Amino acid sequence: MTADKLKELLHEVAAGGLKPEEALARLKSLPYEDLGFARVDHHRSLRQGFPEVIFGQGKTPEQIASIAQAIHRQGAAVLATRIEEEKAGQVLALWDRLTYHPQARCLALAAPAGTKPGKSLVAVVAAGTSDLPVAEEAALTARLMGSQVERVYDVGVAGLHRLAGSAQVLGQASCLVVVAGMEGALPSVVAGMVDKPVVAVPTSVGYGAAFGGLAALLGMLNSCAPGLSVVNIDNGFGGGYLAGLIDHLE
Amino acid sequence: MTADKLKELLHEVAAGGLKPEEALARLKSLPYEDLGFARVDHHRSLRQGFPEVIFGQGKTPEQIASIAQAIHRQGAAVLATRIEEEKAGQVLALWDRLTYHPQARCLALAAPAGTKPGKSLVAVVAAGTSDLPVAEEAALTARLMGSQVERVYDVGVAGLHRLAGSAQVLGQASCLVVVAGMEGALPSVVAGMVDKPVVAVPTSVGYGAAFGGLAALLGMLNSCAPGLSVVNIDNGFGGGYLAGLIDHLE
Amino acid sequence: MTADKLKELLHEVAAGGLKPEEALARLKSLPYEDLGFARVDHHRSLRQGFPEVIFGQGKTPEQIASIAQAIHRQGAAVLATRIEEEKAGQVLALWDRLTYHPQARCLALAAPAGTKPGKSLVAVVAAGTSDLPVAEEAALTARLMGSQVERVYDVGVAGLHRLAGSAQVLGQASCLVVVAGMEGALPSVVAGMVDKPVVAVPTSVGYGAAFGGLAALLGMLNSCAPGLSVVNIDNGFGGGYLAGLIDHLE
Amino acid sequence: MTADKLKELLHEVAAGGLKPEEALARLKSLPYEDLGFARVDHHRSLRQGFPEVIFGQGKTPEQIASIAQAIHRQGAAVLATRIEEEKAGQVLALWDRLTYHPQARCLALAAPAGTKPGKSLVAVVAAGTSDLPVAEEAALTARLMGSQVERVYDVGVAGLHRLAGSAQVLGQASCLVVVAGMEGALPSVVAGMVDKPVVAVPTSVGYGAAFGGLAALLGMLNSCAPGLSVVNIDNGFGGGYLAGLIDHLE
Amino acid sequence: MTADKLKELLHEVAAGGLKPEEALARLKSLPYEDLGFARVDHHRSLRQGFPEVIFGQGKTPEQIASIAQAIHRQGAAVLATRIEEEKAGQVLALWDRLTYHPQARCLALAAPAGTKPGKSLVAVVAAGTSDLPVAEEAALTARLMGSQVERVYDVGVAGLHRLAGSAQVLGQASCLVVVAGMEGALPSVVAGMVDKPVVAVPTSVGYGAAFGGLAALLGMLNSCAPGLSVVNIDNGFGGGYLAGLIDHLE
Amino acid sequence: MTADKLKELLHEVAAGGLKPEEALARLKSLPYEDLGFARVDHHRSLRQGFPEVIFGQGKTPEQIASIAQAIHRQGAAVLATRIEEEKAGQVLALWDRLTYHPQARCLALAAPAGTKPGKSLVAVVAAGTSDLPVAEEAALTARLMGSQVERVYDVGVAGLHRLAGSAQVLGQASCLVVVAGMEGALPSVVAGMVDKPVVAVPTSVGYGAAFGGLAALLGMLNSCAPGLSVVNIDNGFGGGYLAGLIDHLE
Amino acid sequence: MTADKLKELLHEVAAGGLKPEEALARLKSLPYEDLGFARVDHHRSLRQGFPEVIFGQGKTPEQIASIAQAIHRQGAAVLATRIEEEKAGQVLALWDRLTYHPQARCLALAAPAGTKPGKSLVAVVAAGTSDLPVAEEAALTARLMGSQVERVYDVGVAGLHRLAGSAQVLGQASCLVVVAGMEGALPSVVAGMVDKPVVAVPTSVGYGAAFGGLAALLGMLNSCAPGLSVVNIDNGFGGGYLAGLIDHLE
Amino acid sequence: MTADKLKELLHEVAAGGLKPEEALARLKSLPYEDLGFARVDHHRSLRQGFPEVIFGQGKTPEQIASIAQAIHRQGAAVLATRIEEEKAGQVLALWDRLTYHPQARCLALAAPAGTKPGKSLVAVVAAGTSDLPVAEEAALTARLMGSQVERVYDVGVAGLHRLAGSAQVLGQASCLVVVAGMEGALPSVVAGMVDKPVVAVPTSVGYGAAFGGLAALLGMLNSCAPGLSVVNIDNGFGGGYLAGLIDHLE
Repeated sequence: MTADKLKELLHEVAAGGLKPEEALARLKSLPYEDLGFARVDHHRSLRQGFPEVIFGQGKTPEQIASIAQAIHRQGAAVLATRIEEEKAGQVLALWDRLTYHPQARCLALAAPAGTKPGKSLVAVVAAGTSDLPVAEEAALTARLMGSQVERVYDVGVAGLHRLAGSAQVLGQASCLVVVAGMEGALPSVVAGMVDKPVVAVPTSVGYGAAFGGLAALLGMLNSCAPGLSVVNIDNGFGGGYLAGLIDHLE
Repeated sequence: MTADKLKELLHEVAAGGLKPEEALARLKSLPYEDLGFARVDHHRSLRQGFPEVIFGQGKTPEQIASIAQAIHRQGAAVLATRIEEEKAGQVLALWDRLTYHPQARCLALAAPAGTKPGKSLVAVVAAGTSDLPVAEEAALTARLMGSQVERVYDVGVAGLHRLAGSAQVLGQASCLVVVAGMEGALPSVVAGMVDKPVVAVPTSVGYGAAFGGLAALLGMLNSCAPGLSVVNIDNGFGGGYLAGLIDHLE
Repeated sequence: MTADKLKELLHEVAAGGLKPEEALARLKSLPYEDLGFARVDHHRSLRQGFPEVIFGQGKTPEQIASIAQAIHRQGAAVLATRIEEEKAGQVLALWDRLTYHPQARCLALAAPAGTKPGKSLVAVVAAGTSDLPVAEEAALTARLMGSQVERVYDVGVAGLHRLAGSAQVLGQASCLVVVAGMEGALPSVVAGMVDKPVVAVPTSVGYGAAFGGLAALLGMLNSCAPGLSVVNIDNGFGGGYLAGLIDHLE
Repeated sequence: MTADKLKELLHEVAAGGLKPEEALARLKSLPYEDLGFARVDHHRSLRQGFPEVIFGQGKTPEQIASIAQAIHRQGAAVLATRIEEEKAGQVLALWDRLTYHPQARCLALAAPAGTKPGKSLVAVVAAGTSDLPVAEEAALTARLMGSQVERVYDVGVAGLHRLAGSAQVLGQASCLVVVAGMEGALPSVVAGMVDKPVVAVPTSVGYGAAFGGLAALLGMLNSCAPGLSVVNIDNGFGGGYLAGLIDHLE
Repeated sequence: MTADKLKELLHEVAAGGLKPEEALARLKSLPYEDLGFARVDHHRSLRQGFPEVIFGQGKTPEQIASIAQAIHRQGAAVLATRIEEEKAGQVLALWDRLTYHPQARCLALAAPAGTKPGKSLVAVVAAGTSDLPVAEEAALTARLMGSQVERVYDVGVAGLHRLAGSAQVLGQASCLVVVAGMEGALPSVVAGMVDKPVVAVPTSVGYGAAFGGLAALLGMLNSCAPGLSVVNIDNGFGGGYLAGLIDHLE
Repeated sequence: MTADKLKELLHEVAAGGLKPEEALARLKSLPYEDLGFARVDHHRSLRQGFPEVIFGQGKTPEQIASIAQAIHRQGAAVLATRIEEEKAGQVLALWDRLTYHPQARCLALAAPAGTKPGKSLVAVVAAGTSDLPVAEEAALTARLMGSQVERVYDVGVAGLHRLAGSAQVLGQASCLVVVAGMEGALPSVVAGMVDKPVVAVPTSVGYGAAFGGLAALLGMLNSCAPGLSVVNIDNGFGGGYLAGLIDHLE
Repeated sequence: MTADKLKELLHEVAAGGLKPEEALARLKSLPYEDLGFARVDHHRSLRQGFPEVIFGQGKTPEQIASIAQAIHRQGAAVLATRIEEEKAGQVLALWDRLTYHPQARCLALAAPAGTKPGKSLVAVVAAGTSDLPVAEEAALTARLMGSQVERVYDVGVAGLHRLAGSAQVLGQASCLVVVAGMEGALPSVVAGMVDKPVVAVPTSVGYGAAFGGLAALLGMLNSCAPGLSVVNIDNGFGGGYLAGLIDHLE
Repeated sequence: MTADKLKELLHEVAAGGLKPEEALARLKSLPYEDLGFARVDHHRSLRQGFPEVIFGQGKTPEQIASIAQAIHRQGAAVLATRIEEEKAGQVLALWDRLTYHPQARCLALAAPAGTKPGKSLVAVVAAGTSDLPVAEEAALTARLMGSQVERVYDVGVAGLHRLAGSAQVLGQASCLVVVAGMEGALPSVVAGMVDKPVVAVPTSVGYGAAFGGLAALLGMLNSCAPGLSVVNIDNGFGGGYLAGLIDHLE
């Protein structure tokens, strides 16, 4: 039941064509989602260019192309993550308006009407070359949301001088996404250098007692640096989305 | 907003004292929970004698007595779990209509208007004497819901003849709650003897590699016996509630 | 020793051809399983159309076809789970009376004599599209047992309005199977909307800290909603069987 | 070495009183922290009213009072967390300008010069009464940073109508801190209702398979709702600090 | 139904007072445990001096004394484990025929009629002094079963010369119980020195990454030495019982 | 230094060609392993027909054939485990005196001089068909050691009547190897039926919360049945070896 | 058999009073530990001032005093760890030559004859004040071994400028012990600053997802910095001992 | 900015060409890593022949060859680990000066100018043949650093006489790398035989409850032998590097 239909019902009551008791009975079975007042604005803002992500793993090329087109028709940016090169080619054969980003393993298409720029920039920091796919997924997500993105790559805690050299970029960001596997110490160090929110993204990079990213995850959760929060292992999209969201807060 | 108040509003519209547009505006900001149509039946059935549980651990005697009186005033059965003897005495000093069940470590009071009896009986099966507090919590819960409860205690998988001797009782139950710690194998064995739902309740009884009930929990989740499902470790209330619910299905 | 043989023995005693002491000696060594009185009714009810499941993973096409035929000869419904498309074709080449359900990854054949209908309906609720194979396995199982099944798919906790729109279907079910991976929060939400048993089925869907379904499993076990119990990760059969069992309780 | 001292050194070189080579030698052994150019702004902003937290657990009353006074002398707000009532009294006996917040288990003192107000408000949402100490720690932290705080308490996922009733407050916040134990599903549900950053704080509330907050933590990390990130179990300070930081971004 | 009652029934049939069909009907509902033929011998052998253990933890002095007396009346050895000194005194005040073994934390009483001696001896080997309570529990158990017990204590893998000096004793045992905490390597070393069964008992001795005995348990399960098997952490009774059983095999 | 060389040295001393002090100096640097007195008997008994196992996984066909021939030359039985069919063929092409046991996935060759028969028989009990490779590895190991082996397969705890039908065989065994995956409850049940040592072998059979055999392992370690001990997951050789060892104790 | 007795035996052979064959027979049954040649040097070096640690937890004051005196009589340094203040007083009442170090929670006494100084110095680095007891235990251990110890405390990864200020001290050490709880990132950072061995000591400091030191332990094991190794959680003695050992290598 | 450039800047100030204030402004934005005073010596020593490792897993042959050539041009030894035979061939086709070590799965090239020899030797000890790839990676690393390496392979704790036979080699090493999977007990035993640092390297060798090396890792961390520290599972490079470092300490 939409607001229109509810108004109509109330007019019927006002006009005497419907008794209050009958109206009450209809309202009692009113499905919640049809009212949906509170959610309308939220949905509208989402349609204004913020990406709705397609988790590509386990989906067929047909499914991905079809969902992508539906999102595009709504006027939103399209982002499909976790798509290996071969599957990307199959999707592009179906709908060639998407662009494949091989390092991020994503298919993407900007919102047709463009997006509102963020207030500053989003810095994406990564420790090692193996962490780059996750970092690139984060960078691409934030960019699709309209944020300017600066990359600070190949800065590990065992060689902090490289990180120190990027202090100026780090200091300009409104939000930082810090991606690291193995011991996951980099976000703590970065959070100690800035006074902005740091989104830590643990990766499954490592072996042995890395336990698929568990060591990095625990390290980040136990960080003694305030202003730092954590998303799921390898969740580059989640990190980039949150950073983009913060970069667009008014 | 209660149904009465909504009817009043609709009458105002019918009487012309409120324009449909004004009524719409009020309804738009109507807090969902005040309408609560969809939930009314559910709430009503709960008030007809099904217990609303008070998790006593970490609550003060005053809090427990006060919540208990509120539930009682609604006409429902009162059940407060995880209350040690000393705290029970303090609660009873505040409100002496509750009864303390020391083995179940619960305070309880039946629904004033009585409860609908279940269709058959609920069997509560327990392996060892250390499992009895959890088993008694389950039994008390099901009884407060109106179910007839039969206890089958001290039947371990390492001495199955005792269990076999209770086959008749087990066969009559509409639902069985099976409580076990350590290796947690008893529910599998019971589920192989009956064709009714078995609710398995792992307990934290054990030491060493029992890991606080984890071994029993995993054992029950991996049971090869169909018709068996599991609740949280030491959750006697959850087991008894589900069994009582099934025993009252029409 | 069958009941017939026992009767024969008793007749011999009655006729004086066997002394009581000799009969006692024979009975002492009587293998338990040959008596099997208590289990006969159980077995009979199982043969009246309730599925006996064949866990297909790790079995050869020949084994599956042969067990399926044996179950069918007993007059029961046949259900073979966890069978990929290629193996299904090999089984069907051996015995073509089975039907392959690709989404549920199951081979099935209804009981020849039909099954007793359930008293109401079983609702199968699933969060995401990746959870559908498990949900379909549950739905197929309950249907083979004679239950009417309603599917409520693609309702995640991060968009509750879709779930609310299905409140009526949920309210009619005698039992609900709720399938979810990742954080596994859906069963809690559903159990808060109904007053019927909810069987929660965690799935291994997810990545990173999902740890193969562990996160969903723990979430469900710790649910604060009463009336909810849990089966093993990805155990769609177990969920559907329990729901069908509850739907057939008299 | 401060900037002043460095300037002095350079003037000495310019004046010929110090040879370049001697200046170089001094600079080579220059401790990094004494330069501290990059960090000065950061430190200054911290001193302008943002709290520097004292983790009270394991510290003596003397230590707490002494550190608190030092922070106060720098002009910053004082916040000491995890202090039980008895120890709070001992600290207050040493320095009575602090205020004890018993539910948050914190000692606090606002920044002498006041704090810059945030741009909107911080909503602190909590599921159960046992989660309130952590929620209050978050609320107090954000308030000390200058943010307006709205509390939305006692809203569990098994009774979503109460949460829906607070939709307006949730929609106004620039950042939401959502605190939950047991299955930890509340942050997912809240993140689906708003388009602002949600900081999820798992608590150690629960028993059995809650494993000291692990179940809630994993649930939150695996949330399918974008815009959600997680801090350590029971880390109310961390949640409130991040929310206050976001609420003050310009 | 006892054997006597069954004989009586058969006599009734023989005498014509009961028709075979009526006897069959009665037998069909015959509880399994009352027959219990197969288990009688087993029970008898247990009563001939093998200990039936009372797990003392969580039991009251009255319960312990009462169960102990019941076991003693059956002619069996009495063994009550995990009893601290104070509780032991309370039990002894109720029944002073038991003896308290403080290091093993056990109350015990030999079987009145004595026990059959084992064929050789049981060696109980322990690494450190903290492991002695578990080792002594094992030694006492085996002794109550009639086995001769030799103790080889204070032999750690980091000082193997002490172990080598006991090679003769180790070589004479029919079974060895090896108790160790921390890294749990001792059983592997011992099993490489003998060709007899080694029962490894991990203990919860240790700290940090010992994880309450988990490290020792895993070490023992992964031993490359054949002839070695493992019981639960701190389960001295289990180790001693198995060794005594093996020492009495004929 | 062999015994021969030591005798030679002592003769030199006796003949006056070597001073006692010089002999002492040489003995001080005497490598322990060359003496090896204590180990000789042990080694000899091992060579008298007990298998020395070759863990085939990760070894080349050439390595397996070569080690197998070396063991055979010592007069011992040969057993190579974890060898898939294809690799078995390659080994047999190199040395065709071995026999491949496909279900046990082992290559074997009896000791040339035969083996001493055990005193009774070893029972190998298994729950499901997926557990058979591990069970067969155990059975083959015990048989190579000279024990008579009886198999009791397809007896699950959810259908105990089949197990009860094998009570006589179980009662005759001197030791029982019980193999089970999933919840791992079978060893507890069997240990409650016999008064002989039970070696429990957990298997990695199962899915979801079976966690690769962890659930079965924990279940077995926490068994309340005395006389039961556990070996590593899928370690059929370990179970069979220990059973054969016990069956040969004198 | 001591060296003296062996010399005596050889003299008997030399004197003709014992035939070589008889001597051989005696030597064959010679217990290994009595020879102990190979270990003598090792033991001697230990007695020359390297501490033999007494793990004080769980030992009585009498036991501690008695073992301490025995070690002192051997001429070695005495170190008893994990001793709370009250117990320390009780030990000192028995033997007042020990000194109590309250922060390290140790009782100690230097080797009477002094110790050989190390070649350089041992740096003990700690992140937070809660880590100091473990750091002090390490420092005291290394000092008792004769090493010069420099402490670098209160240097966390979230404020690296303090660490950089101590670069000179860190660069002089022959070995560094780095102690950290929570996320455990400090050792990685330190190992990136020096080219000497770094011994990482995780502590149980932290809460929530610190899991008693597990997070720190995993972080250190996964460090990307070469030259770093790890000891058990809270094992200050182990860290200090290894550093002292390295500092004394020749 | 190098030291040269800084000197140049100071000369400009001295010559009056640059005002102190301008110099200050330049210095304020001076990137930390360009100063890098503290790190110069460290970097230099690294360039003098100590290997900088290339973690080959996940890198393309082109990347490996290119990084290897860059390291070689710096005059350092090249070591690329975790490279399977096929990929090694592809790298060698690009740059044939590297040598492939198949058992260690490494590509290597000695430092052009040679390396400083260590002071003694590094012993690499391994338990089983499956541990050899990790052991060889350690041995190769230490050798590239200039250390003399002695291998002691195939010495398991279940057959200690083989280890004892190598006591002399073990005693000569300045540092020992001990590699073991399964229960991981070997490092404890070795550390009890020597008074030199022991670096324990757990391997992922094993099955079942080995949990990918976790059992070995925990065993080593809980070792009661002082002087022992641990690196990550399968981290042969880390073990060899630390040993080479210790062997080169002056």
